[in-house]
Amino acid sequence: MTEQLKMEEAIGRLVKAEDVLLLCHKNPDGDTIGSAGALFWALKSLGKQAAVLCADGIPDRYGYMELTPFEGQFTPRYVVAVDVASIQLFGDSIRDYTRQIDLCIDHHSSNAGYALETLLDAGAAATAEILYRLIPSMGVHLTPQIADCLYTGLSTDTGCFRFSNTTANSHQVAAGLIGSGARLEELNTILFESKSRERIEAERIALDQLEYHFDGRCALIYLTREQIAESGVEPDELENMTSLPRMIEGVQVGLTLRQQPGGSYKISVRTQEGVDACAIAQRLGGGGHSRAAGCELEGNLCNTKAAILAEVERELAAADKEREQA
Amino acid sequence: MTEQLKMEEAIGRLVKAEDVLLLCHKNPDGDTIGSAGALFWALKSLGKQAAVLCADGIPDRYGYMELTPFEGQFTPRYVVAVDVASIQLFGDSIRDYTRQIDLCIDHHSSNAGYALETLLDAGAAATAEILYRLIPSMGVHLTPQIADCLYTGLSTDTGCFRFSNTTANSHQVAAGLIGSGARLEELNTILFESKSRERIEAERIALDQLEYHFDGRCALIYLTREQIAESGVEPDELENMTSLPRMIEGVQVGLTLRQQPGGSYKISVRTQEGVDACAIAQRLGGGGHSRAAGCELEGNLCNTKAAILAEVERELAAADKEREQA
Repeated sequence: MTEQLKMEEAIGRLVKAEDVLLLCHKNPDGDTIGSAGALFWALKSLGKQAAVLCADGIPDRYGYMELTPFEGQFTPRYVVAVDVASIQLFGDSIRDYTRQIDLCIDHHSSNAGYALETLLDAGAAATAEILYRLIPSMGVHLTPQIADCLYTGLSTDTGCFRFSNTTANSHQVAAGLIGSGARLEELNTILFESKSRERIEAERIALDQLEYHFDGRCALIYLTREQIAESGVEPDELENMTSLPRMIEGVQVGLTLRQQPGGSYKISVRTQEGVDACAIAQRLGGGGHSRAAGCELEGNLCNTKAAILAEVERELAAADKEREQA
Repeated sequence: MTEQLKMEEAIGRLVKAEDVLLLCHKNPDGDTIGSAGALFWALKSLGKQAAVLCADGIPDRYGYMELTPFEGQFTPRYVVAVDVASIQLFGDSIRDYTRQIDLCIDHHSSNAGYALETLLDAGAAATAEILYRLIPSMGVHLTPQIADCLYTGLSTDTGCFRFSNTTANSHQVAAGLIGSGARLEELNTILFESKSRERIEAERIALDQLEYHFDGRCALIYLTREQIAESGVEPDELENMTSLPRMIEGVQVGLTLRQQPGGSYKISVRTQEGVDACAIAQRLGGGGHSRAAGCELEGNLCNTKAAILAEVERELAAADKEREQA
């Protein structure tokens, strides 16, 4: 079982640490890379050796952080995981380095406690929010470089301050980071105003196949594996496409069906308040949260659509009944 | 010529005012309606009569502000314009009420000075930012209702904190508004996560016609007037579609051509840093800013495309030359 640290204790560990390996989760997002990046530059400014390791590498789009990837150039003496909720999320290819994690800094309430010591703040919208308090207390000046890294973590995990996890503190941290020289305009362009040609092509195909059901209360898009291959899009680029159908006015349930390489369909269910996405997904063997859930079904497109739409119809009827009774 | 007021002077005027008419600009956005809404509720809380007037009415999406539209229910004794840069922007249909504007509160540096007195802060990202300081000094408690109005203005004018006008102060104001009870999740859903079926259909048609030019350095979408009619989209809903082509990776110039009812094409030019959108538009009789500009051309689609693409090619060559010399 992990030991929960106080902020000051975590600071003490980091200030004493040498030859630090910073670990990110696989399928890296802005928060895991940005948080590792901020710690990387903080440790470097204290004259320490440090490097960043991610099973999938550091994506090119985060090149502006100018991080040093770990390639065995030193023997790690202190290993820190940032924004990683469970040991499975590291990815098998870096298993040699995840046997002993000295410290984990995270904001996921589901953190499994796999590290020797853990600094957890489940109220933070991003791990970057925790580091915004921690790094200056290490005696490190918050440089524009560090501010860029932390802004990346904070803004991506909050969907640029749109998601419901955004708090007053998130905005206060953003204000502080801008004051420290974060390059707002460049970063927002890279992080939020940019889509690959392949992603645009996948969106075109999906929109061409947009369907409305139940008087426009449900919208459905799908991509077959052939279409995904034809567009050339990377599967992880399709993740945020799942928000598209629910965005349409009047739509209470948005469905996104993506065929997997093995032939099955991964279904993302997104709902407006008052309709339970999790209930829909659970009846087909999946799960999730009340507004965002998912399941995976074997079968052809026609059967898959029929199965999920039947559950959507049932849940819309249940939601209507509940509203009438309220 | 208008008299420039200090903040305290403007506060004095508003606290003394009675029977206040609040004027918005036509084609209303979140800042003009939200700022009028915040002042409306502030004046009401001081026991005053007030109402909001906009040539195009108050759009349904802002219904949560619960504003009282002006329908002649009282004779205005003090007229305040919010977020309106020039008298032309009121719209002809409310001309009876724009003959004498007592006070204008605005953040546009281009404000024409049409009001008797003006409170201008061109450093504010939104008029709502100015009112966030002003309203509490009127002796008014910042209620959740007022916070909702101000959050609407601030978040829409900054593109939910993405645009380059966003400052540390914008985020500090957002933090304060959340602290005052602004309903972040509901508002962000309404303001940023919602598109009409017609808008989605127009996007589908435009994406189907997406063209790349000059090795992918320029992307072009267009909609003919027949296609706009077929989709059923309102012209103002197409405004933010102009950001779509530039969003594509590798694209330095994004072009959006929308045919007008009279047959001419309105062209929106959006560029990445290093390419001058204004230079492109100006050579065809238009104008604008360095990254966002526009022009309007008579002629059929084929001629229009050829004319704008020739200017894009010229500007890309100029940008290349400049980069080589730098």
